[in-house]
Amino acid sequence: MNTAHQTTAFLRSLRSVRRFSPQPIPQDVLLDVLEVARWTGSSKNTQPWHVIVVRERETLTRLATCGPFAGHLAGAQAAIVLVMEDAHRSFDEGRLAQNVMLAAWAHGVGTCIGSLYPEANTARAMELLDVPAKRGLHTAISLGYPADDQALRLSANPAGLTSVPIGRDDLSTLVSWERFGRSGASS
Amino acid sequence: MNTAHQTTAFLRSLRSVRRFSPQPIPQDVLLDVLEVARWTGSSKNTQPWHVIVVRERETLTRLATCGPFAGHLAGAQAAIVLVMEDAHRSFDEGRLAQNVMLAAWAHGVGTCIGSLYPEANTARAMELLDVPAKRGLHTAISLGYPADDQALRLSANPAGLTSVPIGRDDLSTLVSWERFGRSGASS
Repeated sequence: MNTAHQTTAFLRSLRSVRRFSPQPIPQDVLLDVLEVARWTGSSKNTQPWHVIVVRERETLTRLATCGPFAGHLAGAQAAIVLVMEDAHRSFDEGRLAQNVMLAAWAHGVGTCIGSLYPEANTARAMELLDVPAKRGLHTAISLGYPADDQALRLSANPAGLTSVPIGRDDLSTLVSWERFGRSGASS
Repeated sequence: MNTAHQTTAFLRSLRSVRRFSPQPIPQDVLLDVLEVARWTGSSKNTQPWHVIVVRERETLTRLATCGPFAGHLAGAQAAIVLVMEDAHRSFDEGRLAQNVMLAAWAHGVGTCIGSLYPEANTARAMELLDVPAKRGLHTAISLGYPADDQALRLSANPAGLTSVPIGRDDLSTLVSWERFGRSGASS
């Protein structure tokens, strides 16, 4: 059995991985990730989503051009594309994305969110994947085993450190107690 | 160590809990949940959020009136209120909510999302918690140990089953392969 603290340490350990090994993702791992996606909670259990699993290299390469920071999709072993019921489901979409990424990471598979925008890119991605026009498409999640130990800390370009700071604000910055701006019981 | 399948079984096991035991949540459990919140990923690591921990009964009771389905907050031992940088962060808000709920559940603490709406309710909640007007406030998450074994399956009203179906669509309904609507490798 997992202890609570092992589990929360796991939850804290999720990081974006943008450079992937060529090792394929076994089908049973992919299906286990999809089962976690399936059981994700949503507003009134509406399950306002559908996912497309993409593994064909040409499709991944074309998806990678559908967002200004989506280049990592070209080197992924698979993508899980989130197709929402309509354009107004971003909160539930975030819950689904988090669950997919955590489930992959449980198997040692790294992930990175590829945001598909602006509008012209989204339209191209929808055409590429045959997504009906009324659906909401914003997110393709790259999946793959990390290329190496540094893949957890580097950008898609192996020469450069990511330009995004990778730490987090302190707990005292994140949290107020009882009222906004009130410090207190956190220490 | 956790095995991958133990971890994904845990991820799948999260359910809403709307009836809570009077057992308090220990401070170290609450802080462990907040550490998971702190390490949640966000778009370009902007961390567009702040959280307010509410434990005062009067505040919880008033919050419970700030959403048509938020009554469960009145019986919670604590609430974690998500205060977003502005009104356009719903995807990252969903990721944060999922992480908070999973971290609590790792400790056996149940959660339920309380959505604060419509506008007049949101305004009351913002005033109650001293939240600055430009921030985005939509979500207060109830926390508490489940009241009993049935609390995982029943509504806030112990007399009635929840009116929301608690199952999920089949994997074949959720997933397409390579293109929207294409079945295939899932079985």
